[in-house]
Amino acid sequence: MELKVTNAQRAEILTQALPYIQQYYGKIVVVKYGGNAMINEELKQQVMEDIVLLHLIGVKVVVVHGGGPEISDMLKKIGKESVFLDGLRVTDKETVDIVQMILAGKINKNLVSLIEQKGGKAMGISGIDGHMIEAEMKDERYGYVGTITKVNTEPVCDLIEKGYIPIVSTVGCDMEGNTYNINADTAAAFIAGALKAERLISMTDITGVLRDKDDPDSVIHCMDIAEAKTLFADGIICGGMIPKVECCIEAINMGVERVTILDGRVPHALLLETLTDEGAGTMVIRDKSEAGL
Amino acid sequence: MELKVTNAQRAEILTQALPYIQQYYGKIVVVKYGGNAMINEELKQQVMEDIVLLHLIGVKVVVVHGGGPEISDMLKKIGKESVFLDGLRVTDKETVDIVQMILAGKINKNLVSLIEQKGGKAMGISGIDGHMIEAEMKDERYGYVGTITKVNTEPVCDLIEKGYIPIVSTVGCDMEGNTYNINADTAAAFIAGALKAERLISMTDITGVLRDKDDPDSVIHCMDIAEAKTLFADGIICGGMIPKVECCIEAINMGVERVTILDGRVPHALLLETLTDEGAGTMVIRDKSEAGL
Amino acid sequence: MELKVTNAQRAEILTQALPYIQQYYGKIVVVKYGGNAMINEELKQQVMEDIVLLHLIGVKVVVVHGGGPEISDMLKKIGKESVFLDGLRVTDKETVDIVQMILAGKINKNLVSLIEQKGGKAMGISGIDGHMIEAEMKDERYGYVGTITKVNTEPVCDLIEKGYIPIVSTVGCDMEGNTYNINADTAAAFIAGALKAERLISMTDITGVLRDKDDPDSVIHCMDIAEAKTLFADGIICGGMIPKVECCIEAINMGVERVTILDGRVPHALLLETLTDEGAGTMVIRDKSEAGL
Amino acid sequence: MELKVTNAQRAEILTQALPYIQQYYGKIVVVKYGGNAMINEELKQQVMEDIVLLHLIGVKVVVVHGGGPEISDMLKKIGKESVFLDGLRVTDKETVDIVQMILAGKINKNLVSLIEQKGGKAMGISGIDGHMIEAEMKDERYGYVGTITKVNTEPVCDLIEKGYIPIVSTVGCDMEGNTYNINADTAAAFIAGALKAERLISMTDITGVLRDKDDPDSVIHCMDIAEAKTLFADGIICGGMIPKVECCIEAINMGVERVTILDGRVPHALLLETLTDEGAGTMVIRDKSEAGL
Amino acid sequence: MELKVTNAQRAEILTQALPYIQQYYGKIVVVKYGGNAMINEELKQQVMEDIVLLHLIGVKVVVVHGGGPEISDMLKKIGKESVFLDGLRVTDKETVDIVQMILAGKINKNLVSLIEQKGGKAMGISGIDGHMIEAEMKDERYGYVGTITKVNTEPVCDLIEKGYIPIVSTVGCDMEGNTYNINADTAAAFIAGALKAERLISMTDITGVLRDKDDPDSVIHCMDIAEAKTLFADGIICGGMIPKVECCIEAINMGVERVTILDGRVPHALLLETLTDEGAGTMVIRDKSEAGL
Amino acid sequence: MELKVTNAQRAEILTQALPYIQQYYGKIVVVKYGGNAMINEELKQQVMEDIVLLHLIGVKVVVVHGGGPEISDMLKKIGKESVFLDGLRVTDKETVDIVQMILAGKINKNLVSLIEQKGGKAMGISGIDGHMIEAEMKDERYGYVGTITKVNTEPVCDLIEKGYIPIVSTVGCDMEGNTYNINADTAAAFIAGALKAERLISMTDITGVLRDKDDPDSVIHCMDIAEAKTLFADGIICGGMIPKVECCIEAINMGVERVTILDGRVPHALLLETLTDEGAGTMVIRDKSEAGL
Repeated sequence: MELKVTNAQRAEILTQALPYIQQYYGKIVVVKYGGNAMINEELKQQVMEDIVLLHLIGVKVVVVHGGGPEISDMLKKIGKESVFLDGLRVTDKETVDIVQMILAGKINKNLVSLIEQKGGKAMGISGIDGHMIEAEMKDERYGYVGTITKVNTEPVCDLIEKGYIPIVSTVGCDMEGNTYNINADTAAAFIAGALKAERLISMTDITGVLRDKDDPDSVIHCMDIAEAKTLFADGIICGGMIPKVECCIEAINMGVERVTILDGRVPHALLLETLTDEGAGTMVIRDKSEAGL
Repeated sequence: MELKVTNAQRAEILTQALPYIQQYYGKIVVVKYGGNAMINEELKQQVMEDIVLLHLIGVKVVVVHGGGPEISDMLKKIGKESVFLDGLRVTDKETVDIVQMILAGKINKNLVSLIEQKGGKAMGISGIDGHMIEAEMKDERYGYVGTITKVNTEPVCDLIEKGYIPIVSTVGCDMEGNTYNINADTAAAFIAGALKAERLISMTDITGVLRDKDDPDSVIHCMDIAEAKTLFADGIICGGMIPKVECCIEAINMGVERVTILDGRVPHALLLETLTDEGAGTMVIRDKSEAGL
Repeated sequence: MELKVTNAQRAEILTQALPYIQQYYGKIVVVKYGGNAMINEELKQQVMEDIVLLHLIGVKVVVVHGGGPEISDMLKKIGKESVFLDGLRVTDKETVDIVQMILAGKINKNLVSLIEQKGGKAMGISGIDGHMIEAEMKDERYGYVGTITKVNTEPVCDLIEKGYIPIVSTVGCDMEGNTYNINADTAAAFIAGALKAERLISMTDITGVLRDKDDPDSVIHCMDIAEAKTLFADGIICGGMIPKVECCIEAINMGVERVTILDGRVPHALLLETLTDEGAGTMVIRDKSEAGL
Repeated sequence: MELKVTNAQRAEILTQALPYIQQYYGKIVVVKYGGNAMINEELKQQVMEDIVLLHLIGVKVVVVHGGGPEISDMLKKIGKESVFLDGLRVTDKETVDIVQMILAGKINKNLVSLIEQKGGKAMGISGIDGHMIEAEMKDERYGYVGTITKVNTEPVCDLIEKGYIPIVSTVGCDMEGNTYNINADTAAAFIAGALKAERLISMTDITGVLRDKDDPDSVIHCMDIAEAKTLFADGIICGGMIPKVECCIEAINMGVERVTILDGRVPHALLLETLTDEGAGTMVIRDKSEAGL
Repeated sequence: MELKVTNAQRAEILTQALPYIQQYYGKIVVVKYGGNAMINEELKQQVMEDIVLLHLIGVKVVVVHGGGPEISDMLKKIGKESVFLDGLRVTDKETVDIVQMILAGKINKNLVSLIEQKGGKAMGISGIDGHMIEAEMKDERYGYVGTITKVNTEPVCDLIEKGYIPIVSTVGCDMEGNTYNINADTAAAFIAGALKAERLISMTDITGVLRDKDDPDSVIHCMDIAEAKTLFADGIICGGMIPKVECCIEAINMGVERVTILDGRVPHALLLETLTDEGAGTMVIRDKSEAGL
Repeated sequence: MELKVTNAQRAEILTQALPYIQQYYGKIVVVKYGGNAMINEELKQQVMEDIVLLHLIGVKVVVVHGGGPEISDMLKKIGKESVFLDGLRVTDKETVDIVQMILAGKINKNLVSLIEQKGGKAMGISGIDGHMIEAEMKDERYGYVGTITKVNTEPVCDLIEKGYIPIVSTVGCDMEGNTYNINADTAAAFIAGALKAERLISMTDITGVLRDKDDPDSVIHCMDIAEAKTLFADGIICGGMIPKVECCIEAINMGVERVTILDGRVPHALLLETLTDEGAGTMVIRDKSEAGL
């Protein structure tokens, strides 16, 4: 994108963001970031810039990230064969160790580092720190795949209060010292819910929920819970979109105002979503009529 | 200005402001506003928007305003003839009452109201409130024209701490209950100096200091104190520009980092000056070589 | 009053005020001051002394003032003819500008100045500052005569917390930037009510409510709401006293403990009312039987 | 004293105290109280009233008390014979136990109780609490007569911060758990010095320092340290007055602004001294010329 | 007890206390101390050490003490004959003065001193200070024997907040300035109840409640309120144990979690009770089944 | 160790720790933990218990950990051959990634988890978080082996203030987003120095500095800097001990009071070192004569 605007236009544009800034001032926005949305390096840089900017203008941004391909890469590197059961990776002790290392040691710290390069002040924690994400085994057959039993918001709130952008990697723990691999979408929904966040923005590498999966222009810009249920029933929400939309609904039921499945491939999608009247992806709200839509 | 930018470009532009926002975050910027710079209603709206935006992104903006034509208008209305001596309006008791009313009652509250319409939180005070601007008579022949003897920063700091944008009208007071008309440029310089402000931005309706007064393109973008002295000696700084530049130097000597005589006729000049690499007008600094310029 | 007391007697008198001081320590007392009560300069000085003294001994005094003759004087000065409708001044834009200037610019700052001369620490604000008094047009026929829609107590509380005596001028505002002339008695009642003040003291230049309007000795020292209603019905409360007593009742209904219509012509009437067993004027309470009277 | 003043005069008198109240607002005043000044019950009630009043109007009063006749009475009661050496009571273990009981258990708590009856909020501590007054034996021959080695102001400051009037009984302690009888004048001087008090007022039952010991009208109202030294040399300061004036000088040398030996037999002497232009007794200051006297 | 443990064992033992420390961290524990439990000097030293240790490891210890034999000793010393009525000492004015002196002046300060010798930071107050224990006469026939009408916890909480171990002597007061002798067990129960303490530990010189009063091995280690009632009915709780157990029940009814009548003759009984799985004495709880016992 | 002590002895032992607890109360103790000292699982559990205990009794413990054999294991697993130069592992980008993952993702979180299992509240951060450890390349030939340029203590202090035990993994960062492998002993010394810690305790798996390297009984219990220099010169401090002792001296020069090279193979060595009069290893202090040794 070649951008030719005068500084006068820059200033004009900044002031047009004013009502949006006022709307989010002091509010908590949880950004779920991960998977394929993390792959493009230039986009990653932009996401970090957007987060630092939102933080500076008074939004309390919390980043929750998952892993993506780096886990598989490392497992491959050490010659560990991946076994899947019901679509879930069977996670033995050695695997969960790798998951923890990649999430809490590599991706987490790299995100912290990127944010600091953009001038932000970040601290990276995992669900183990301050016993933030308590979990238990979903099913013994899957090994250390965890179900969240409790989210303790204190560590995140402590960091926000001290002026840091909290970057949370989604591994869970229990009182016996076990680590669990937690689905990042679920973790983000639980964390946003426990924080009673204003918004949960889930950054993906897709266009959003499509009414016709073959037509990228058929994206559903906004749906409420009732509509989502119909779309589930009609098979329009299908495949990998099912758990994503379910997480959205779960977050709303736990008290989040609005949840967006955001197309992270759009440059500065985060700012577009929060500081302009445009959005890329699908927003889920509790009840359209109640929201006057 | 017809502005056609996509939202993507908006977002891009917002992130480009990031380093500037970081530079001013938590810093005090005193904006002197008044006189002819206040006349154009559309520009006034923009100045207010700019101030609210700067406040929201963490800049501690303090507005210091003078009066301008409204004082003369009101004096004319009540049939009071204006007498001038050495270029100063001879200010008897009735005149200083009108000055106080117009500054503290009309202009001050109108600015507060404008800022609140833009979503800001402002409180308007005068140099009398909290005994902020202590003054004495400059010369009996001029009547209640005051010289500042002391600036008490507590009222302004109290308001900043409580989250308000302080709007200060430049009347002074003494322990006997007299009110004095204070030159707004001088007052702004003293207040910025007492606050050890990062910047003093004096909004005017001129292009800045011109090397050739007939050539608007000959504006001097930056000068230091030594250069200013030469320009005074050479008669290049002349007329109404003399006291303005003297105020700039005074403010720097009292501890302000940088002072700008800003051309307020440029739309969003305040944002341009603080959040882009462009400026409109003349900046004065202590020492160019020391600043690496 | 020629006062010949020994210092020993002074000390004795100070200690006799002890139980009264304890009663008001830390409590909010709203003093409505204005109109004819402001005219006598010596009395004005005493009122200010009383306010500073009350502030020093731990009472949270809030002064709410109206305008009085100075508005009419200024309107006359600029040759504006006053039109009245249903007893209210028809207030066009030019008139409300004058009202704002006189209230917020002249009277307000003069009161601040007087208090500071007595050693107090005051800050003068209007209903516009911090959007304190939100209002709307009462009736288009009257122009900018306002009805209060909401009182935001934050600005007053912020000033009290920072150690200032807040001096409030009674102009209101709306979100469109209009200013409204607000009846000062009503404003004081709403502010006292919103602050859940211990007391509202309305300083007037009359003796109080008289049982026989021609007999100044027939003053009713205390009435409750039920009695007031009977007195309204019997026509004993009449003329200008009607809205005053209605304001008292409104304040009580909004949560003020006691309201007094105080004869401000009595020297140090404020201190007499608060720090002695004597009062000058008429006190209104919710229910005499409930108060054990 | 039969006092016939109107309430109007009361109010007038209260406002005349205004400048005095402003002078002491927020300042620490240490009142040494004890000995014969405590005997008259009516005067004691007045002293307590004065202290509560001073506390309420913002003075940080600290009361330091000694013992007086009650110690001798109790020793007599238990049949303990008093032995004196160099004018000091030889204080064996049993005696110092009695001293501690009377001071910390009887007089201290009775003063606390009196202040609370007057509506004040007091807490009584001894030099043992929080290890406030550290002491060592003056001379083995005198037994548990102590010399102050250190005053820890933290306990007093903690109580002031929590809103209590601290009442301090003058027993000292050491790290071995011994209790020492401390001269109350000395303790008060050390405490006032350590607190950098604005004033130390030592309440006695005498007229002050007399130029002619047989002429009660020859009281010296004010002296500075240099003058005191001459008066010592000339034998005019003599007898029991010597240690009292020495304590005054010591307190001044430790940083107290002004010290007064006050005639506690004068009703409300404390208020007279602080809130009027009259004083009863002798004031000691550092240097008259420096104070402009 | 000759103790031969290696330092390695010391360390091991310290870590075994960890779960107990965690259980009481930040909790309020009221220790009633007095009477015969105070007599043995070595045990007293140990109790003080235990209190300082508990304080250091984060327990909020409040010590409430009574008097014991020292009151009788002093009364005997001054030749005052003790008269008893219904088992209560008839307390005339002279007697209550002695009680106040011994409790608030002697025992209280001696405990403060002991704690400070062990390195603790203590402040000793009585029920008079800050009007903590308000009381009234139980029956005129007993004189100044008091019944508690109200416990004001503010003084104790203020001291805890400032880091002191509060040591409270159990004399009560009323608004007329009278002092009352208050039963220390009752006072401790009321104070623990008003503080909603985690535990009340009453240190005695007995083994606890015995099922067979002649068999010291028949101690009842734990009982709930229902059981206590049966034991009262069966006459097993008898004599001096009756009021003690009644106090325990009262404290539980006011909100204390657990109450223990502790055998203070056991060395470091306090630490045993709180930091090991062993206890010496009888614990009373609300309901065994509810507690899972 | 079979330990047979009675609870009475336990209590006795707890109180004997009192003076040690008081000595460290509120002080910062940095514990460097890593390498071989981490291998024995039972010892690791004990170290964690010791840390939680120290934290609970008021010591501000900061844990700084390195890596040890797990880094080599992982490198071996992924088939990366280790190249050494001047005794330092040549660290290319892939290697430093593994280092970061193991340190910040595996070891760090495992330590956090262990501490939480013991009931502590911990948060694990790396030198990247909050830009805590700023570093630069030591020498291009070694790759990403870093030299510390600055330690920012804010993140550690923020966590302490919020009640967490900070667990710091020693990777450094620069403004370009590079990660550096930092020697853990050096990092611990710099962090302790920047925090002005009371103590730095470096846990190792050796006996301490030996006077005769073949005689484990020849351990030097205490040395000062001057002695250390002689021991360097004499070749007594040699091999791997050289950098360790150099770190000790560096820490002392940066302001740490005392540094200990502690034999972590001794059970509960940390508690022995801090809470008893025994120590295992070698203590280094600034100056023996100054310390009175």
